[in-house]
Amino acid sequence: MLSNFKVVLVETSHPGNIGAVARAMKNMGMDQLRLVSPKLFPHADATARASGADDVLREAGVYSSLQDAIADCQVVLGASARDRTISWPSVTAREAAGRWRGCIENIALVFGRENSGLKNHELDLCHYLLRIPCDPEYSSLNLAAAVQVVCYELFVASGQEYPNTIGDQWEEPLATAEQMEGFYLHLQQTMADIGFLHPERSKSIMRRLRRLFNRTQLDIKELDILRGILRFSQNHNLK
Amino acid sequence: MLSNFKVVLVETSHPGNIGAVARAMKNMGMDQLRLVSPKLFPHADATARASGADDVLREAGVYSSLQDAIADCQVVLGASARDRTISWPSVTAREAAGRWRGCIENIALVFGRENSGLKNHELDLCHYLLRIPCDPEYSSLNLAAAVQVVCYELFVASGQEYPNTIGDQWEEPLATAEQMEGFYLHLQQTMADIGFLHPERSKSIMRRLRRLFNRTQLDIKELDILRGILRFSQNHNLK
Repeated sequence: MLSNFKVVLVETSHPGNIGAVARAMKNMGMDQLRLVSPKLFPHADATARASGADDVLREAGVYSSLQDAIADCQVVLGASARDRTISWPSVTAREAAGRWRGCIENIALVFGRENSGLKNHELDLCHYLLRIPCDPEYSSLNLAAAVQVVCYELFVASGQEYPNTIGDQWEEPLATAEQMEGFYLHLQQTMADIGFLHPERSKSIMRRLRRLFNRTQLDIKELDILRGILRFSQNHNLK
Repeated sequence: MLSNFKVVLVETSHPGNIGAVARAMKNMGMDQLRLVSPKLFPHADATARASGADDVLREAGVYSSLQDAIADCQVVLGASARDRTISWPSVTAREAAGRWRGCIENIALVFGRENSGLKNHELDLCHYLLRIPCDPEYSSLNLAAAVQVVCYELFVASGQEYPNTIGDQWEEPLATAEQMEGFYLHLQQTMADIGFLHPERSKSIMRRLRRLFNRTQLDIKELDILRGILRFSQNHNLK
């Protein structure tokens, strides 16, 4: 789905970083990796750090120039933390993810050397500077960390994110309002039975207990457990 | 500004990952690191990977239990990629960044072991599961990569991001509409002078050229350069 996005690494020094980039990409459903004159590749460190994303490494294209690596790309974004003498149009990772979401053009995401980034003549090949917001006092991200953030933004923008909040993938159905009212009645009755509830302040206490249990969004299993506790508490009091 | 967010690493195996976490945090303006029973710490690999964020390592607290590490925290978020038998309320990194932005409570961001994450009894100490959207087919992020994404979201939500798009930090002022009209007149005259402009299709060509140069948002320096080219082109034709 994100196969039109090509991650292009220019003259990477440490093969471990190439492996970490492959892993970061695959985590976000991306697999198009292009390497421009890597210092050491293939290399055991790359495979080790790829940690299961070795298919991305295996399929990676190796090029002798950035021009060749981006030849089929319509949009070229160059990651850069440095300020340049000549300003260059820039987009943040999030803006880029939004702007080119669902596009069919090939988009190159170009990342420079670990220590010195992209040279000016390489930036000249880019349409936009790709910027990752960060502390300006300490703005050099690790190569794989930068790729991770950019690929994460692309993945989120692609809408493949699966829902997983309470209620969506909860293993038990949530209690209905009617079930909750039954519980609150039972709770109130139990508090009276065990002698906890002073009638004059029962209203305020019940409001607080309602707020508490409404906030937690009980599921029906939890409701069963609580009502079981209430029943035993009532019976215990009878003995 | 983000000092109430505490990154807590539980039983990290590789000291290099601890260093990479420190760097990822500092890139995003964070410095509160807590380590629960790290296998090897301090360690040369941690310092090497921290790459200038060794102050974060130096100040890191080391604890013998997760309980101790989170004792002063009001909200505890546990990063987890695994699905659990008992569902746990979860928030994505972006939701968490929005929800606890600007809060004054201490918030623990707990990250588990490289291979096995957090154990269930550790998750029991968490209020929410902290989830990073990713490909469910390959969902295990490198420890530092996971910390990077979460800290990045917190940084972006904190509003410290500095603007850097064209027009904001551009080194020259952009051309005004009046300056652009002068340029278009000059361009049209030059095209006539050099015999390029056929009067019958000049309107359509001028519209396309307007679209092109309006889209690029010329600054006044660029405008000067283009008008210089036009002048030389006109003079050349006169010779």
